[in-house]
Amino acid sequence: MRIALGVEYQGGAYCGWQYQDHCDSVQKYLQSALSFIADEPIEVHCAGRTDTGVHAIGQVVHFETKSTRLGRAWVQGTNTKLPYDIRVAWARTVSDDFHARFSAVARQYRYVIFNRPVHSAVLSGRVTWERLPLDEMAMHKAAQTLVGEHDFSSFRAAGCQANHAIREVQSVQVSRHDDFVFVDIQANAFLHHMVRNIVGTLLEVGRGEKQGEWLQTLLDKQDRTQAGVTAPAEGLYFVNAIYPDKFDMPKTELDAVLWQG
Amino acid sequence: MRIALGVEYQGGAYCGWQYQDHCDSVQKYLQSALSFIADEPIEVHCAGRTDTGVHAIGQVVHFETKSTRLGRAWVQGTNTKLPYDIRVAWARTVSDDFHARFSAVARQYRYVIFNRPVHSAVLSGRVTWERLPLDEMAMHKAAQTLVGEHDFSSFRAAGCQANHAIREVQSVQVSRHDDFVFVDIQANAFLHHMVRNIVGTLLEVGRGEKQGEWLQTLLDKQDRTQAGVTAPAEGLYFVNAIYPDKFDMPKTELDAVLWQG
Repeated sequence: MRIALGVEYQGGAYCGWQYQDHCDSVQKYLQSALSFIADEPIEVHCAGRTDTGVHAIGQVVHFETKSTRLGRAWVQGTNTKLPYDIRVAWARTVSDDFHARFSAVARQYRYVIFNRPVHSAVLSGRVTWERLPLDEMAMHKAAQTLVGEHDFSSFRAAGCQANHAIREVQSVQVSRHDDFVFVDIQANAFLHHMVRNIVGTLLEVGRGEKQGEWLQTLLDKQDRTQAGVTAPAEGLYFVNAIYPDKFDMPKTELDAVLWQG
Repeated sequence: MRIALGVEYQGGAYCGWQYQDHCDSVQKYLQSALSFIADEPIEVHCAGRTDTGVHAIGQVVHFETKSTRLGRAWVQGTNTKLPYDIRVAWARTVSDDFHARFSAVARQYRYVIFNRPVHSAVLSGRVTWERLPLDEMAMHKAAQTLVGEHDFSSFRAAGCQANHAIREVQSVQVSRHDDFVFVDIQANAFLHHMVRNIVGTLLEVGRGEKQGEWLQTLLDKQDRTQAGVTAPAEGLYFVNAIYPDKFDMPKTELDAVLWQG
């Protein structure tokens, strides 16, 4: 039996998604909780591996199990074995051809910037603070340069292990809601640090330090040393993995679990 | 010189607003930071003393000082001496007849309920979780019974030290935004635990355990043992103190610093 889960987590306490022997990863806690419920060792595969400190509101995982459990056991039961900052939101049985990572045709991330002279006391750790006023319309316009299939070498972490840097950015929206600036980005897949490097670059445009045309220059140069600094992890949310319609997978609504979309 | 400050805090780490020798209060940290900046002992007075665990996005305080500082010293300077979960949002010189507590003609609180079968991983500690579906329209209708001047003894904590229980509730709005249910309440002043006892009572109505008419019965009985349980502190935000126009005080916009209003 193959089961898919929707998973949310607050990344602050974890060394990212992926299991590592020497640190607390989200995968480690999730597998431990699921193995308890299944009464057998469970290994999960996720839609998008997130870095240290990055949050998720719509991570999707799947696993194989010989155990038969009600849906609510995989949800409520697993949650009783998880720390408060990791939650299973839903569970469903999926066909054997579903794979959380390889079936996904696109991923969505949201980056949340709190743009005010003073940081937020109640949202620190959940948003990135930018004290200088941002021109979100300039950021949005500049970001449109990224839409389409490009070589994103300039936005790729030095340690990125992908075979090539060509990705298709399907949409980027930069929008403001009072003191919040949201960067919503969807691509077929992302390189290591790609969203945070794009946001770091857009922040320079938003602060007026660079012109919007800089984005095209960066794409052309294919050189990571030219783009903006990597924006902090605490503002980044993995929002959704998108699957072909035949799998009929739930979609996370931003409005339902985060600030307004 | 009399200075007023707008103060935000996340209540989770504090034993409430008020200075107490034996625990970490918001007032203790704020006075300590301000005394450092002023280079003299500073004592602050606040608009509304909040309980252990209660948050604020629009607390207002004032203090007297002989030190002359630029506005940004009272804001940025003080913030460098405060823990990350307490922030000074603004500062301004006020006239000698301004008093953060006694000049305030009304206070606003928001209570945030996350209403979904599974708690939020990223907003835990910032919202109260209710897994059973709430009828927010029934809650709103029932809450209108509270509007006006009434004896709120049924919603008053046993240890409340107020002289009498008569308060004027000026408005109560219960609204839903996807999985969030907001209870926004404004009164001339509040009794100890009054908002949390009202919300605990409205939650029983929202879950369908009680009818809306129950609120009138509770007001009539003037007996705390009859109303709902005290709702948890983690969903409660002190939003605004309202002053006469002559003081021209800033007003906190909910949309700017919290979820949508």
